[in-house]
Amino acid sequence: MAIITIIGIGQIGSALAFVAAENGNLVRLVGTPVDKEVVDACKRDGRHPKLDRPYPAGTQYYYCENWQEAVEGSSFVIGAISSFGVDWFLEEILKKLDPAMPVLSAAKGLADLGDGKLGSYPDYWVRALRKCGIRRNIYALGGPGTAMGIMHHDHTQVVICGKETKLLKMMKDALQTSWFHISLTKDAKGLETAVAIKNAYALGVSMALGYARKAHGDEEDHCNSQAAVFTQAVKEMIRVLDLQKAHFDSTLIGIGDLYVTATGARTRQLGLLLGEGKTCEEAQALLGGMTLESLVVIRRLANSITIRARKGQVNLEDFPLLQFVIGVLDSGKMEELPWNRFTFENI
Amino acid sequence: MAIITIIGIGQIGSALAFVAAENGNLVRLVGTPVDKEVVDACKRDGRHPKLDRPYPAGTQYYYCENWQEAVEGSSFVIGAISSFGVDWFLEEILKKLDPAMPVLSAAKGLADLGDGKLGSYPDYWVRALRKCGIRRNIYALGGPGTAMGIMHHDHTQVVICGKETKLLKMMKDALQTSWFHISLTKDAKGLETAVAIKNAYALGVSMALGYARKAHGDEEDHCNSQAAVFTQAVKEMIRVLDLQKAHFDSTLIGIGDLYVTATGARTRQLGLLLGEGKTCEEAQALLGGMTLESLVVIRRLANSITIRARKGQVNLEDFPLLQFVIGVLDSGKMEELPWNRFTFENI
Repeated sequence: MAIITIIGIGQIGSALAFVAAENGNLVRLVGTPVDKEVVDACKRDGRHPKLDRPYPAGTQYYYCENWQEAVEGSSFVIGAISSFGVDWFLEEILKKLDPAMPVLSAAKGLADLGDGKLGSYPDYWVRALRKCGIRRNIYALGGPGTAMGIMHHDHTQVVICGKETKLLKMMKDALQTSWFHISLTKDAKGLETAVAIKNAYALGVSMALGYARKAHGDEEDHCNSQAAVFTQAVKEMIRVLDLQKAHFDSTLIGIGDLYVTATGARTRQLGLLLGEGKTCEEAQALLGGMTLESLVVIRRLANSITIRARKGQVNLEDFPLLQFVIGVLDSGKMEELPWNRFTFENI
Repeated sequence: MAIITIIGIGQIGSALAFVAAENGNLVRLVGTPVDKEVVDACKRDGRHPKLDRPYPAGTQYYYCENWQEAVEGSSFVIGAISSFGVDWFLEEILKKLDPAMPVLSAAKGLADLGDGKLGSYPDYWVRALRKCGIRRNIYALGGPGTAMGIMHHDHTQVVICGKETKLLKMMKDALQTSWFHISLTKDAKGLETAVAIKNAYALGVSMALGYARKAHGDEEDHCNSQAAVFTQAVKEMIRVLDLQKAHFDSTLIGIGDLYVTATGARTRQLGLLLGEGKTCEEAQALLGGMTLESLVVIRRLANSITIRARKGQVNLEDFPLLQFVIGVLDSGKMEELPWNRFTFENI
């Protein structure tokens, strides 16, 4: 029985705990500094206060100050933190962790590497660690799936990316189950960009739906307008991913992730509210102060495209949906989408 | 005021009647032989018995035997027939219509051109007409949109494809409205293949959802499994469209059309029933004997891929989702999807 330590007891950390245990591993769940009360509850009840089921029998719980004890003897460590915990994870964990211990990150997001360059969080960490003289690879997991779906045993495809074939295979063997299907790739930059930027574009699709519902009523399905925006979203995503030199399989995962995010994830709820005319602050308040990582991603993506446009590497006109989404976020005012800019004439 | 004659009073013919009238055209609606009672109702009530609103004021109605009278003075003729009327349209209209009268087809589907070659219905008609010494181009309209959405003024993007720039622009000018957005392309084969084959793949996505609902209950959203199949669907669609040498804009329209079909069109209802374990016959009976053109497309696509595989042009292993869908249609027995065949290892 292998031991897998998961740092971060949010939705995705919890989902991976179920997956890892189902595959016969012993799971150690470590809270981040914001999870203290969750760890209290886990130690007391064996379950996360926000989840409808207990963690698998045998799961062990640790406060963040005891993370080194949890890591002892583990096959690898999963960093299941939100993008708001990226620097904490770097300073408090990665800088102190034995470089021989493999790390798999489940953080979704994009780091701003400066000068318009977008990187994954693993990229960002690896660079920062190198500056301290620490050399390590960091692996990452991403793909079209909600944590809730994983917990409900809905068939899910994810991808693990990173440098060494042997470690990729080890992590796949440790985590795959009959419903949790794992692809592997060395295209970390492409994959991580794909699963991050889909947030910007899923927001666009759901904003269009919110706007249409307000204009025409809830009872109609507004599939056509969603599909028109979805088409444009895929077009712009492919443009960004081509800039990142993504492998096409990574791009496809991003498109699948756009589908799941536009039809059923948290970003959709934000988009619906924005589309109905709420400001970003009002929408976030209505969503109970959810940590909306998608907003961070959108800003970074838009910033990167703007810088690249200034350098003549891209044409801003090729990203009308992204420009629209960022415009609504900036102005707080929803308006009709730039439909005519989504059409083409190949004649 | 231009006159536009639409032959076929089904959903798409009706939707285009609203669009054409909104743009200031006079519309003449011509029934096919199966529409006799619909024409009766239209002449009497000014509305289609199955629609919730009357046709625009001024719309004129014709029985099919009077189609030549309707066509007189028209700017162009729209063939809004189902794939079951393709040969009727060829024999009774196209062979007798003045070759100078432009024709726009809204028929969705794929013709079997023999030897594994798939073509659009316009291809099929143009070839058949040429054998009779008639030379004409035929234009086609396709894209991600349900007829209902168009009638409800939901923003819709469609594409008109064909040979001559001047005629493409004329049709766009005649049909575009503030909510009906028209792209143009000369890639007729790619576009028509894209909007046809999405049916096969949307069926796969909705079968997965039906199966998951039966296994896990309706109350969960099963987004992850849908997204995993959607990802594979996009991958296989791109493979087919690359074989057809489709322009990437046409491929994108196919992906958008997959989205709308998987989330809201008739093929979805069939897929849900098949996924729950109904046979094709049972599902069609439950759907009230709908004309399910998607089934024709799927058979033709599968047949084409099989022939191409026999010739060594493609590898059947690259189409696991298509093989799965056709297997369920053949056996009448739903089973677990081949999830492991949807994963990849780029290492």
